[in-house]
Amino acid sequence: MMPRILILHGPNLHALGTREPEVYGRDTLADVEARLVELSKELGCEVESFQSNHEGLLIDALYQARGRVHGIVLNPGGLTHTSVALRDAVRGAALPTVEVHVSNPHTRETFRHTSLISAVVLGTVQGFGVDSYLLGLRALCRHLSHGR
Amino acid sequence: MMPRILILHGPNLHALGTREPEVYGRDTLADVEARLVELSKELGCEVESFQSNHEGLLIDALYQARGRVHGIVLNPGGLTHTSVALRDAVRGAALPTVEVHVSNPHTRETFRHTSLISAVVLGTVQGFGVDSYLLGLRALCRHLSHGR
Amino acid sequence: MMPRILILHGPNLHALGTREPEVYGRDTLADVEARLVELSKELGCEVESFQSNHEGLLIDALYQARGRVHGIVLNPGGLTHTSVALRDAVRGAALPTVEVHVSNPHTRETFRHTSLISAVVLGTVQGFGVDSYLLGLRALCRHLSHGR
Amino acid sequence: MMPRILILHGPNLHALGTREPEVYGRDTLADVEARLVELSKELGCEVESFQSNHEGLLIDALYQARGRVHGIVLNPGGLTHTSVALRDAVRGAALPTVEVHVSNPHTRETFRHTSLISAVVLGTVQGFGVDSYLLGLRALCRHLSHGR
Amino acid sequence: MMPRILILHGPNLHALGTREPEVYGRDTLADVEARLVELSKELGCEVESFQSNHEGLLIDALYQARGRVHGIVLNPGGLTHTSVALRDAVRGAALPTVEVHVSNPHTRETFRHTSLISAVVLGTVQGFGVDSYLLGLRALCRHLSHGR
Amino acid sequence: MMPRILILHGPNLHALGTREPEVYGRDTLADVEARLVELSKELGCEVESFQSNHEGLLIDALYQARGRVHGIVLNPGGLTHTSVALRDAVRGAALPTVEVHVSNPHTRETFRHTSLISAVVLGTVQGFGVDSYLLGLRALCRHLSHGR
Amino acid sequence: MMPRILILHGPNLHALGTREPEVYGRDTLADVEARLVELSKELGCEVESFQSNHEGLLIDALYQARGRVHGIVLNPGGLTHTSVALRDAVRGAALPTVEVHVSNPHTRETFRHTSLISAVVLGTVQGFGVDSYLLGLRALCRHLSHGR
Amino acid sequence: MMPRILILHGPNLHALGTREPEVYGRDTLADVEARLVELSKELGCEVESFQSNHEGLLIDALYQARGRVHGIVLNPGGLTHTSVALRDAVRGAALPTVEVHVSNPHTRETFRHTSLISAVVLGTVQGFGVDSYLLGLRALCRHLSHGR
Amino acid sequence: MMPRILILHGPNLHALGTREPEVYGRDTLADVEARLVELSKELGCEVESFQSNHEGLLIDALYQARGRVHGIVLNPGGLTHTSVALRDAVRGAALPTVEVHVSNPHTRETFRHTSLISAVVLGTVQGFGVDSYLLGLRALCRHLSHGR
Amino acid sequence: MMPRILILHGPNLHALGTREPEVYGRDTLADVEARLVELSKELGCEVESFQSNHEGLLIDALYQARGRVHGIVLNPGGLTHTSVALRDAVRGAALPTVEVHVSNPHTRETFRHTSLISAVVLGTVQGFGVDSYLLGLRALCRHLSHGR
Amino acid sequence: MMPRILILHGPNLHALGTREPEVYGRDTLADVEARLVELSKELGCEVESFQSNHEGLLIDALYQARGRVHGIVLNPGGLTHTSVALRDAVRGAALPTVEVHVSNPHTRETFRHTSLISAVVLGTVQGFGVDSYLLGLRALCRHLSHGR
Amino acid sequence: MMPRILILHGPNLHALGTREPEVYGRDTLADVEARLVELSKELGCEVESFQSNHEGLLIDALYQARGRVHGIVLNPGGLTHTSVALRDAVRGAALPTVEVHVSNPHTRETFRHTSLISAVVLGTVQGFGVDSYLLGLRALCRHLSHGR
Repeated sequence: MMPRILILHGPNLHALGTREPEVYGRDTLADVEARLVELSKELGCEVESFQSNHEGLLIDALYQARGRVHGIVLNPGGLTHTSVALRDAVRGAALPTVEVHVSNPHTRETFRHTSLISAVVLGTVQGFGVDSYLLGLRALCRHLSHGR
Repeated sequence: MMPRILILHGPNLHALGTREPEVYGRDTLADVEARLVELSKELGCEVESFQSNHEGLLIDALYQARGRVHGIVLNPGGLTHTSVALRDAVRGAALPTVEVHVSNPHTRETFRHTSLISAVVLGTVQGFGVDSYLLGLRALCRHLSHGR
Repeated sequence: MMPRILILHGPNLHALGTREPEVYGRDTLADVEARLVELSKELGCEVESFQSNHEGLLIDALYQARGRVHGIVLNPGGLTHTSVALRDAVRGAALPTVEVHVSNPHTRETFRHTSLISAVVLGTVQGFGVDSYLLGLRALCRHLSHGR
Repeated sequence: MMPRILILHGPNLHALGTREPEVYGRDTLADVEARLVELSKELGCEVESFQSNHEGLLIDALYQARGRVHGIVLNPGGLTHTSVALRDAVRGAALPTVEVHVSNPHTRETFRHTSLISAVVLGTVQGFGVDSYLLGLRALCRHLSHGR
Repeated sequence: MMPRILILHGPNLHALGTREPEVYGRDTLADVEARLVELSKELGCEVESFQSNHEGLLIDALYQARGRVHGIVLNPGGLTHTSVALRDAVRGAALPTVEVHVSNPHTRETFRHTSLISAVVLGTVQGFGVDSYLLGLRALCRHLSHGR
Repeated sequence: MMPRILILHGPNLHALGTREPEVYGRDTLADVEARLVELSKELGCEVESFQSNHEGLLIDALYQARGRVHGIVLNPGGLTHTSVALRDAVRGAALPTVEVHVSNPHTRETFRHTSLISAVVLGTVQGFGVDSYLLGLRALCRHLSHGR
Repeated sequence: MMPRILILHGPNLHALGTREPEVYGRDTLADVEARLVELSKELGCEVESFQSNHEGLLIDALYQARGRVHGIVLNPGGLTHTSVALRDAVRGAALPTVEVHVSNPHTRETFRHTSLISAVVLGTVQGFGVDSYLLGLRALCRHLSHGR
Repeated sequence: MMPRILILHGPNLHALGTREPEVYGRDTLADVEARLVELSKELGCEVESFQSNHEGLLIDALYQARGRVHGIVLNPGGLTHTSVALRDAVRGAALPTVEVHVSNPHTRETFRHTSLISAVVLGTVQGFGVDSYLLGLRALCRHLSHGR
Repeated sequence: MMPRILILHGPNLHALGTREPEVYGRDTLADVEARLVELSKELGCEVESFQSNHEGLLIDALYQARGRVHGIVLNPGGLTHTSVALRDAVRGAALPTVEVHVSNPHTRETFRHTSLISAVVLGTVQGFGVDSYLLGLRALCRHLSHGR
Repeated sequence: MMPRILILHGPNLHALGTREPEVYGRDTLADVEARLVELSKELGCEVESFQSNHEGLLIDALYQARGRVHGIVLNPGGLTHTSVALRDAVRGAALPTVEVHVSNPHTRETFRHTSLISAVVLGTVQGFGVDSYLLGLRALCRHLSHGR
Repeated sequence: MMPRILILHGPNLHALGTREPEVYGRDTLADVEARLVELSKELGCEVESFQSNHEGLLIDALYQARGRVHGIVLNPGGLTHTSVALRDAVRGAALPTVEVHVSNPHTRETFRHTSLISAVVLGTVQGFGVDSYLLGLRALCRHLSHGR
Repeated sequence: MMPRILILHGPNLHALGTREPEVYGRDTLADVEARLVELSKELGCEVESFQSNHEGLLIDALYQARGRVHGIVLNPGGLTHTSVALRDAVRGAALPTVEVHVSNPHTRETFRHTSLISAVVLGTVQGFGVDSYLLGLRALCRHLSHGR
């Protein structure tokens, strides 16, 4: 059976491509999603996407994913550094999860050097622009088919 | 007149019983609420419940409680450690409030050892599984009838 | 053309005037808005207001303001000290923004001495009760007409 | 068989009711013990009490409790924040233990916000005046009869 | 009677307009004072100014202001972050005081993020270039005529 | 009526004069007490002394002093830096108390730079060898006869 | 022209597969290199590898890579957290570099949560077992052919 | 020969008696000096006084005291917590010095809990209102006649 | 003359062998003492032992050892990390002292990584189960016969 | 079969006896090794030694020891406080290891109070001059023959 | 044209040669200045000197130097560690500046290890006694003639 | 006899002139050495140089210098901030040593603001480009001929 994967985008990511392009690049969220769909075909999996600026909706989405998808690619945006509730939900969903970041947090403000999410995911891909999503999807598919 | 009490559950608590049961136990939120109703009868008070994964809805609920209930039993979930806005709302609601936690935060990650909520409540009950709610309800009822 | 300005109020500010009046004074949000409208006429600008207890709705509002208003007066409430997502949205909206606080955060708890917002705004006005809003509006209008 | 419970009071608690009553209330230790005895009858358990200002005697008492009682309600007083030796003794006694505090430590000096004891007990009840003892006794009895 | 206000400028502010203009702008202290005089007429108050690079002279000036002026607009310059003696003098003068900064300290070095002065003033206006002085004068006049 | 004063010596002070004389000098505890008695006559007060290496006995002594003496001169020894229980007892005894130290803690190890006791006493005298006791007695007598 | 890439392995990585397999898995360095060669063919690039337990040899290798390869995939091992000299060499080599880690450092000791290398690389891939290398190679090849 | 002692008062102490009397009491500097002259006669020493709000003048005074007086009673005011230059001057003057404070710094703001001066003086007397000066003078005279 | 050595056991060590055996092993204090006596014969020294849960009694014992024994093997238990008074007593006793720990504190809680005792002893032996005592006795005997 | 033990000496230890003899004593590395050989005969084990100033060679040596020796006595020298790579190698070698130090790190600079190695060894012996090696060898032999 | 250089000496440096000679040596300020004049002839520049114990006068001197000298050799004395105002003046003067220290701050108290000045100067010379001034003058002259 | 001086260059310095020239300038190590030789003739001393990227070789070089040269000019590169082993070797070599840095570490990353080396050298010269070496050589020659 084809694995199904949820791509979850946190706050401010709806504005990808138009917001601080010198940091985040010029690809829009639609561009990213098109490339993810394309890659999913190559990898033999299905992807669906959800973006929200609301921590609560992201938490809801994580629980609704239980039993419905096989893994999650999560870009938690600014919640990365501040949300224990989102971390708890990642753990609560109990699905293999990969954390991705478009920019490299370690070249930015100090408060971005700490992630509350990293300790509850399989692994992290960061700093490769929107390619981080594609690499994260590959990492997750590989994990789902081979384990680690 | 019978005191009326709001039981307020923060993020991830809808999943009680299914999420990390080795930490939170196997009682569901419905189980907890049934036991709270039963206890409220013994104590001579009325309880109502609200759960949300949304910080904003919890804040709204705290203000809507003003003038309608006499006290609050609050399990802030992961917001315990991060939400100044929720703390401000507890103070803004200006109702006697008891903080409860199902697990014992001090046996878990360091970031769970700090509570932004504890300083604005009457007191805290933590670590007794879902019994924490029942003890919190007792504490609040006693406070409402005798003061301290 | 008359500049258009969004006044954005964060969590708990709907309760202004009734919540902890010894800290925040007795003017309600309606009073503040009436005074802002009056001042906007004197300054030759238009104001509109939005309050929410939801971080997500505030972030949405910041992006919706792009291309529609010329600047923002923002009272982030308790999110001031905790929300990287809101900070990212202020930067994402890319509009001149002024941070205001009704109370003086430096006479209160230590966690209120740190603002995640201050580094992404033009400037800050704090401690003058609801006058902080009016001074913030003046600062912004002056900036919009003269630059700095 | 009826469970037997030791109530252990740390330094300064002999002066309950006369010492800083604005913080600790006006109930004396004798009052507390009378109420605990009364509650123990309701709960079907037996209680005995010991108070000491000597860390060493409290440690001795914890070990003497092994094999003789089924659980402990412990108010460590000022040792809460400073005594690794008492913490080691709680663990050494290897009995179910509940930590209680009369006042709410989080509304007091910063050094009271840290407990060396919390991580080695079942749970904590704090801030409800002398009711904290009664709630702690309930929590322990419930634990002894149902486990968690 | 017309309120009288002292504008007090700390170290390095005599060089305003020529020193680091990319940070502090190109208006000189004379320009600022001319604008303050003009505004004072509109507001119905009188202003006088004093600048010194000497912490001691600033402290002297604060005490000499007692009984002679009704309020103070203070730009403490680099002493903001280091001078307990100046803070003590602000409190010792016991006059309503507004803190102003030309630049936004939160976009600069970390040691500028802490102010020893903020906790002993009515409020703070920072980041609006020399407009910060004018807004500070408005805030003070309003306070003197209406209280808060 | 002649004021009665308890001189309370903490751990290790029985060895004064023989222990680390390069730090604490060569006067013994008996020498100190003789000089205190002599001074008490000059000042018109009575003194009694108690030394213990046991935190618990010092706490007991503080409570037993209530209603029996008018003030306390306390050298808490090494407990200065570590005992919340002793601090609580000083506050619990509710008697005017002066803290004294033979050596100057600020020329020694870093952990001696912090005192848990200083915030609950009238004042502190430190660094003058055994003269610190005599100055402390003077300070207390003056306080008892004149208040501050 | 086909891009040439150096895979650089830091201390302890020669023992991959036999050392702490519960942390690092059972693939040996030879296995990893075989898989990297295979992937390089798919991606149209050439790879060469070097492992050393000597910080100095790794630094030498980074400089020798200048002008000879087009990018580097670097697993700095334990030097990640301690070597400013290696960081300086990464910057000194001035080649596009990707940091990879076999394990997820954020689920391990606190000192592994800080990387001196992350701020001088394009991005980081961590936590996917030896797949981290393969993903890192993909990220680098993509960067070399498309830029970011 | 009669020892000569300089009483040195730091910033804000000229306002003693009128400034924050709830903290510093109602005795003026003139009152203090009259009492010090009176006590100096009893002790057989001579005193002279100097107050300045200028760190530089206090430093000058310390050096001018060399060879002219035998010891110094120093109340550094707010410079206590911030002035390395004053500390260096105390050491540079190389005269026996006693540090005094009118209030008890440990019952005030955290930044007053640290003294840069304490480590370079004989000892400290703090918290006894203006009596701290008199006790400090006694301590110094005793030291000058007996050594320690 | 045969050197005489005091073995001093701090809080909780009376329970060795029965308390947390997975941490401290299954040898009882009696077993340890038997092995120490046996080894003392081999080494040509005499040993005596004292255990107490009371910090005060341990301090008393240290002073009583002066002039009576030639050195001390000290396991301070939980007081290692918290007792300045015990540290002062070790220094006050002025006897060669060796610190021993049964478990390896560095594999346990963070607060066990700091020892107040280590800086006032000859050296430390930790982590070898009850063999730590035997190695400590050897170290001390060697020191007493050869110096270092 | 006779156990074989590697004695591993880190940076600067080749200079033992000539380098800072007031800290490290006057025994040379050759003296130490002679004494270790002598003791190994008494204990029925074989020892071999290796010293290097190169972190990389020490790491190599640890891995080469696998399968060839039964345990390691390691003096990591200055790498104790800074080398994660060496710590990883100790764990990677997976042999029983004892950490020894000639001097007592706790009487020296603060940065020597932290060891990265202590948490991955059986135990530590420090402060007894070159006897630390001999005690370490005893501890290891005992462990190899009895376990703990 | 011959470059003109201001040598600026901060607090306590007038006492060079007589103050703590074990730290600062026995050369007086006059000796230093004579040597600087001599060296200036060799280097082909002119020097003038100014010393003050007043932060304010040093700041004044920095601004008066603008347009009149070509560079500054600054020994900020104790202000090095505490004066943001002096740092701002160094930047405000906008002249090439070299920081010098007679002693080596890193062998002294911890608070001397931090310099607020170092980040706003060309470079620093410290620890060579009064030779630090001469080296600083050379560094500055070289910079003025060659740039860097 | 002519003093002989070793110039020791740490990691990455072989690349001087080509690596990050905007930070380190464009002079190569060969240029620096030519200038040092030239200056050594003027100063009447002999210089030899050694560069290594290997901490171990630098430590070896420091010991081999004992008895062969009279002093050392050391640029520790990135090891400045991380190597206790190198610091120990500087102390072990027991030769007068001067620390030099090409760039000004205080205008760079925070981790460069701390030096483990500064406390064990005569003094430091930093920030003057490659002139720092020449000034360091002068400082050392002067020290060798005059002492300090």
